[in-house]
Amino acid sequence: MEPEELDGTVDVAAYGVPYDGAVTNKPGTRYGPEAVRTATNRYSRVFDSDKKRYSIATDRTASYDGVTVRDCGDAPVTPNSTEETYESVVEYAETIAAEAMPVMIGGDHYLTYPAFVGYANAVEDDIGIIHLDAHEDIGSSDLYGEHYHGSPMSRIADTEYGGLENHAMVGIRGHSRMEVLDAIEEEGLHIEYAKDVHEKGIEACIENAIEHATDGVDHVYLTMDIDVVDPSYAPGTGTPAPGGITSNDLLRAADRLGECDAIGAVDLVEVLPTEDPAGTTSLVGANALSRFFESYFYEE
Amino acid sequence: MEPEELDGTVDVAAYGVPYDGAVTNKPGTRYGPEAVRTATNRYSRVFDSDKKRYSIATDRTASYDGVTVRDCGDAPVTPNSTEETYESVVEYAETIAAEAMPVMIGGDHYLTYPAFVGYANAVEDDIGIIHLDAHEDIGSSDLYGEHYHGSPMSRIADTEYGGLENHAMVGIRGHSRMEVLDAIEEEGLHIEYAKDVHEKGIEACIENAIEHATDGVDHVYLTMDIDVVDPSYAPGTGTPAPGGITSNDLLRAADRLGECDAIGAVDLVEVLPTEDPAGTTSLVGANALSRFFESYFYEE
Amino acid sequence: MEPEELDGTVDVAAYGVPYDGAVTNKPGTRYGPEAVRTATNRYSRVFDSDKKRYSIATDRTASYDGVTVRDCGDAPVTPNSTEETYESVVEYAETIAAEAMPVMIGGDHYLTYPAFVGYANAVEDDIGIIHLDAHEDIGSSDLYGEHYHGSPMSRIADTEYGGLENHAMVGIRGHSRMEVLDAIEEEGLHIEYAKDVHEKGIEACIENAIEHATDGVDHVYLTMDIDVVDPSYAPGTGTPAPGGITSNDLLRAADRLGECDAIGAVDLVEVLPTEDPAGTTSLVGANALSRFFESYFYEE
Amino acid sequence: MEPEELDGTVDVAAYGVPYDGAVTNKPGTRYGPEAVRTATNRYSRVFDSDKKRYSIATDRTASYDGVTVRDCGDAPVTPNSTEETYESVVEYAETIAAEAMPVMIGGDHYLTYPAFVGYANAVEDDIGIIHLDAHEDIGSSDLYGEHYHGSPMSRIADTEYGGLENHAMVGIRGHSRMEVLDAIEEEGLHIEYAKDVHEKGIEACIENAIEHATDGVDHVYLTMDIDVVDPSYAPGTGTPAPGGITSNDLLRAADRLGECDAIGAVDLVEVLPTEDPAGTTSLVGANALSRFFESYFYEE
Amino acid sequence: MEPEELDGTVDVAAYGVPYDGAVTNKPGTRYGPEAVRTATNRYSRVFDSDKKRYSIATDRTASYDGVTVRDCGDAPVTPNSTEETYESVVEYAETIAAEAMPVMIGGDHYLTYPAFVGYANAVEDDIGIIHLDAHEDIGSSDLYGEHYHGSPMSRIADTEYGGLENHAMVGIRGHSRMEVLDAIEEEGLHIEYAKDVHEKGIEACIENAIEHATDGVDHVYLTMDIDVVDPSYAPGTGTPAPGGITSNDLLRAADRLGECDAIGAVDLVEVLPTEDPAGTTSLVGANALSRFFESYFYEE
Amino acid sequence: MEPEELDGTVDVAAYGVPYDGAVTNKPGTRYGPEAVRTATNRYSRVFDSDKKRYSIATDRTASYDGVTVRDCGDAPVTPNSTEETYESVVEYAETIAAEAMPVMIGGDHYLTYPAFVGYANAVEDDIGIIHLDAHEDIGSSDLYGEHYHGSPMSRIADTEYGGLENHAMVGIRGHSRMEVLDAIEEEGLHIEYAKDVHEKGIEACIENAIEHATDGVDHVYLTMDIDVVDPSYAPGTGTPAPGGITSNDLLRAADRLGECDAIGAVDLVEVLPTEDPAGTTSLVGANALSRFFESYFYEE
Ligand SMILES: [Mn+2]
Ligand SMILES: [Mn+2]
Ligand SMILES: [Mn+2]
Ligand SMILES: [Mn+2]
Ligand SMILES: [Mn+2]
Ligand SMILES: [Mn+2]
Ligand SMILES: [Mn+2]
Ligand SMILES: [Mn+2]
Ligand SMILES: [Mn+2]
Ligand SMILES: [Mn+2]
Ligand SMILES: [Mn+2]
Ligand SMILES: [Mn+2]
Repeated sequence: MEPEELDGTVDVAAYGVPYDGAVTNKPGTRYGPEAVRTATNRYSRVFDSDKKRYSIATDRTASYDGVTVRDCGDAPVTPNSTEETYESVVEYAETIAAEAMPVMIGGDHYLTYPAFVGYANAVEDDIGIIHLDAHEDIGSSDLYGEHYHGSPMSRIADTEYGGLENHAMVGIRGHSRMEVLDAIEEEGLHIEYAKDVHEKGIEACIENAIEHATDGVDHVYLTMDIDVVDPSYAPGTGTPAPGGITSNDLLRAADRLGECDAIGAVDLVEVLPTEDPAGTTSLVGANALSRFFESYFYEE
Repeated sequence: MEPEELDGTVDVAAYGVPYDGAVTNKPGTRYGPEAVRTATNRYSRVFDSDKKRYSIATDRTASYDGVTVRDCGDAPVTPNSTEETYESVVEYAETIAAEAMPVMIGGDHYLTYPAFVGYANAVEDDIGIIHLDAHEDIGSSDLYGEHYHGSPMSRIADTEYGGLENHAMVGIRGHSRMEVLDAIEEEGLHIEYAKDVHEKGIEACIENAIEHATDGVDHVYLTMDIDVVDPSYAPGTGTPAPGGITSNDLLRAADRLGECDAIGAVDLVEVLPTEDPAGTTSLVGANALSRFFESYFYEE
Repeated sequence: MEPEELDGTVDVAAYGVPYDGAVTNKPGTRYGPEAVRTATNRYSRVFDSDKKRYSIATDRTASYDGVTVRDCGDAPVTPNSTEETYESVVEYAETIAAEAMPVMIGGDHYLTYPAFVGYANAVEDDIGIIHLDAHEDIGSSDLYGEHYHGSPMSRIADTEYGGLENHAMVGIRGHSRMEVLDAIEEEGLHIEYAKDVHEKGIEACIENAIEHATDGVDHVYLTMDIDVVDPSYAPGTGTPAPGGITSNDLLRAADRLGECDAIGAVDLVEVLPTEDPAGTTSLVGANALSRFFESYFYEE
Repeated sequence: MEPEELDGTVDVAAYGVPYDGAVTNKPGTRYGPEAVRTATNRYSRVFDSDKKRYSIATDRTASYDGVTVRDCGDAPVTPNSTEETYESVVEYAETIAAEAMPVMIGGDHYLTYPAFVGYANAVEDDIGIIHLDAHEDIGSSDLYGEHYHGSPMSRIADTEYGGLENHAMVGIRGHSRMEVLDAIEEEGLHIEYAKDVHEKGIEACIENAIEHATDGVDHVYLTMDIDVVDPSYAPGTGTPAPGGITSNDLLRAADRLGECDAIGAVDLVEVLPTEDPAGTTSLVGANALSRFFESYFYEE
Repeated sequence: MEPEELDGTVDVAAYGVPYDGAVTNKPGTRYGPEAVRTATNRYSRVFDSDKKRYSIATDRTASYDGVTVRDCGDAPVTPNSTEETYESVVEYAETIAAEAMPVMIGGDHYLTYPAFVGYANAVEDDIGIIHLDAHEDIGSSDLYGEHYHGSPMSRIADTEYGGLENHAMVGIRGHSRMEVLDAIEEEGLHIEYAKDVHEKGIEACIENAIEHATDGVDHVYLTMDIDVVDPSYAPGTGTPAPGGITSNDLLRAADRLGECDAIGAVDLVEVLPTEDPAGTTSLVGANALSRFFESYFYEE
Repeated sequence: MEPEELDGTVDVAAYGVPYDGAVTNKPGTRYGPEAVRTATNRYSRVFDSDKKRYSIATDRTASYDGVTVRDCGDAPVTPNSTEETYESVVEYAETIAAEAMPVMIGGDHYLTYPAFVGYANAVEDDIGIIHLDAHEDIGSSDLYGEHYHGSPMSRIADTEYGGLENHAMVGIRGHSRMEVLDAIEEEGLHIEYAKDVHEKGIEACIENAIEHATDGVDHVYLTMDIDVVDPSYAPGTGTPAPGGITSNDLLRAADRLGECDAIGAVDLVEVLPTEDPAGTTSLVGANALSRFFESYFYEE
């Protein structure tokens, strides 16, 4: 259904953004929405009936009667213009967020910026960020300027409703920049590194992230860059980084994040189907979304 | 050699079933036997000499002098008929089982049904099942009926020699069905979920499975659906499910299962070479078979 | 720059050897140097400036001012002659080693033999070996003779400066040979098996390896066969073996090995780009090299 | 739109049949409808406006105002039952044919049989066949029986409205069977072999085929097996046969066939996306359909 | 060597532009320069010696003593900015064109616009265009605006030195637009359609194109979109169109075009290595360049 | 069956040589015999029965009753030794040639040298050569020496039974060497270039080749390098050259060559399965062999 057809009776409204024009490395995440949708087919049956469901993965039973999930198709994009695509996504996200919980499927990580702005325009309030990623994405670059897939967290921090003091990252390991130290020490950014996950376990890291992101705010935006997962589980991404968390870590993170009611918007980005020979990357991403919502709407 | 040439001097007789007509998802496991055979080349030297062997993977030394392993080729299949293929596999399995330990290489998981029946016809006794899989495969479906690759465990339970009370599953995580709860609570099915393996370790789970499956029976059929392993290790399968066990878990399971003398028949199914770009999936399957038999015939 | 242009001002000089003529299994590691170089692009920025760097992967800050890394291109090879390629690599390695720390990028593992000899000719002293691999590579073969990619460790042991008593292997699991037991029991070879890594952790295993390899010698040659990593992380190799260590284990091994000042030469071999559909194997190899040198030149 | 929503205002109604259960060779044509639809995106603009169009490929101008083309989605299939799929396709085809010109996208070539029967049920009259293929598909087989992808032309000939005397084949080259000679000499089958196309040109062959197929009948069913084209142009098919016609031959055939008003139903089958690495096969198929309809509805 | 190092002693200076940001379909031509360079390795030996060469492909002997060809590396690009890339390519092309014959390797076809402008800035005179392509690329689009890979010929026609009256296209077949008819009838555009090549032969078509493009001008820019060749020969391109010319047609076109002394700049664009599984597309492109220059500098 | 089991009752005895150690470009033809054998499955039925067969490809009927074809498996190879492999192939070929017509499936083109020598040892007489190839393969090289896949025709010419005066090449186009002119003008080499095939047709070229090769000799060795066919038909080869003949040209060449009774040995080389994504290359090669023997044993 179209975003403007939403009338408050839908709980979750997904939309795709087939855009990769802000990528500086391998292109092709424009095919991400199509691949993730195909991969969700196996999981979509959970919410489409009034029957009780037994989830074998988590060994618990639930009824999702009354939970409605819809696909609002792809936001219009202009393949050769980041600016026009930005405007389109802001509008799409805002229209959806006014009536349902928006779930954006990218596309490259720059798209989190307009998806956040659209959501923020709808809630008009401070918003925390939980950000699963191999990279911190707070860069600016002499070469790429301020608007590329490595910069969205800085653009969000510049907005009225964002800010690094409520931004918690999980799984970071990929790059080397002094700016990150500044952001941690001076602006309140919280990071659970990949090595923290290896040492403390994913649950503890997610606990910390939730605590930090929700401190003093009522709304949280959850963004999942698929490259947070190790390339063995998710080869299909443009900037893979070895040493990542397992896909099971991501699924358990999704279980725990689903218990955080403050989360009001979600995205999944950087799935690159052209480097995903067996389709396992989009499968992990789709499963993480499914596990998140199974937990989010779970009632004993 | 042909099954009818077996005369009791062969210990293990492998056969392929290049059939995927009972698949409801991605086809192509018809190429499984060919791929698994190629992958076993590296392991086959273990049993073909009278020399003592030092196994570097397990750091122990053994002589397999006297153990004979043979390949009986592929059972005849009719690509467009599940019924005819069923009959052919039952006959092939029964002929082999009368003289040697049968090892079936699939093909899709439906084939475990005729392979079990052939084995049961030979032993004419109650048979327990140890079943490594991401999925419980006890479905029946309005769409697919009773005979497809998601139903073999129910078909086996319906036979004279089967039954869920001696059926132990390991690694399950993939689907969501209320029927499974019934099977557990009312029919005695035992499940070690994938998350149990993550939490308790594979050895403990296999211990429990062996205990359950052998309780009161003298014969056990071991079936390994390669999708029990996480897609990062085994992308080449038609119904991959994230959150699985590691390939090392499977190898250690094989070591432990090899100590269970009650096991009298084995299969390996759902290897899908067309989604296995680097051949790692068939390699894991072949290695699991090799490790199982190294343990099974091990004598200090 | 060319090896003969080195004048003592360069710290690390990498060179490729695009040769796979000593392989007995899948060919194609001749494309390894090209793939590993491409994958190092992301890591090369660490050493090329005088700025302090914050490494997000290890959460520590360092300045590499004064450390100079150069690429000396590929050593000449004769695709159809192992003998001529041997001579060429010895000369290339020796020329480089006289002026800088040589880093050889293979090519197949036989090349460690000439790379070692070239290094040994330069240092003219006993050399220990730390050897990360799935296989022990001390074979000789009726079929392949003494000069193939499964034999370099025996050829090295035969040289004046080598010897198994200072050879420590880590991650071994792949083959089954009685010769290995002899080498351990009679010649002092030390092995940390893959299962030791699974049980004791990579740090403890690397500690033991360093201790053994440096016992009584001042120089150590570090050789990394990418197949030490499990095929899920490194599918692109010619003799993959399930049950391996994780890529994160390799990265942490590199961190620890970088603290061993005795290491004076390094290689990375057996990367097979034609079986590496998403490029993850060469990425892991490149990252391991980067992590090793970040640690090696780290100053608090 | 659904077939039952058609009300006579639509000219052409396409539908997919994602079924390959009657294949005896490589599976995977179940993905054909999806791939062909994606490939038609480039061509679909021709019919969706009231503007005059200049076709650069044929250098002529036309207005397709008033021509309506719709996609009726996929006919329901049962992946593991040829019989049930047969029934479903007959019904789908018949419902569509009652209101519009049906265009079936397979799937394997067996599906031409139910698609023909559905069309025949709607027209209730004798129907000629124009059949572009590498193979004559009039087989019956001891192994596969009467219902597989090599037999549909015999099954059609057995129906009330079919018959080989109005069946014209073009491009045949693939198999060797005496039955074909009988069909030609005794039942009136007409064949333009692939070598006839190479020698006489595609136009002359199509002329002959139209003449034969329309002789005495008012309705013609056009079936295009993509393997009629040489594997260099169409690698993505399960039974490729070298020595085929060019893709340009197929496009020019489509131009000429579009002038044959008797054609009342069309299909395109045997597109195998899993063997079509660059998507060129589905592109050729989609372009052939487009060229056929541009010619069919062309008015100067 | 760098463009600014050119000093008039080099005859041909090639440069790459790894940019695909103006593409509206499949991305990835950013890898084109790398792939084409690798493919030219086989042909580069022709010009690097003073020996007479016997060309087996054309059965004639020539000496290219005195002809100097150099690679000037890649022009700087900004992956997320068409405007900045435009400026960079204009400057690079102009610097090169002042001293040597520039050969641009794309990248997408939009890049012909800045490459032409750079060349035009150097010659400061009217320039004809010979344009081999499946598409006419004179589009403007409500969706993509004026600056994308389907519009460069219009942008060139808008410049001081361009103009459709000296623009000759060869191989066109791909799209359907009324604007093309206007360009032909009112602006003097000349088209040799793909079907003209099939009917008249490539030599005749190239003759006509040269005659049209050189009519009244002293300089000609030759642009080769690899998609002019049929997808069977060149699958690796983003907008493939069946019914194209053969690769041998392209090679013979290159032979004939090499006799046209007015040609002063050349480009090869739209090679998409990620859709070119066997590397045949970049091979055809590289061979066409080689054949052009063998003919261009040929002296009996 | 083994070569030594042949007893004169077999007409044609095929054998593979899985060796590519003499290749100087892309490795992988070691997988050629396996791929070609798989591809011949479709054609093998022709000769295995006493029934009359109607060949649809050539539209003629024949009975091959009495013709016996056998596969003698692979000759032993030493992957890292061209010398040892040479010896092995000579012996294998000679043993076979003493009792049946040998058909060697490579492997790289160097193998034609030992396969020729083995055949020559059996016939002990002058032997003409018909050689289909993109390259003339009479090179010697400063870099590779005298024994690599570009030199076999010179090595054969050096033997007692070879000589360029009875050597006819067809399809040549690939390299540029003055030596070839000498061979033509001084040693009697005859070449039908690829452009001759394009201009005169394949039949005329084959006529000329047969005439030249059989002039004064009673025995002819036929060698087919698959790269004689254009890369669009045969991408799977290590040294592809655009501008080649079509696969249909090769099939028609096989038809005509089959009428030349002097041909007493055949080979097919340079099939590279790892660059053959849809298997079309090995299919063309297998079909050419099949067409040759259908013609060779044809009796009206
Ligand atoms: Mn990231
Ligand atoms: Mn990110
Ligand atoms: Mn299963
Ligand atoms: Mn399963
Ligand atoms: Mn190894
Ligand atoms: Mn090794
Ligand atoms: Mn066919
Ligand atoms: Mn057919
Ligand atoms: Mn273009
Ligand atoms: Mn184009
Ligand atoms: Mn050749
Ligand atoms: Mn050759």
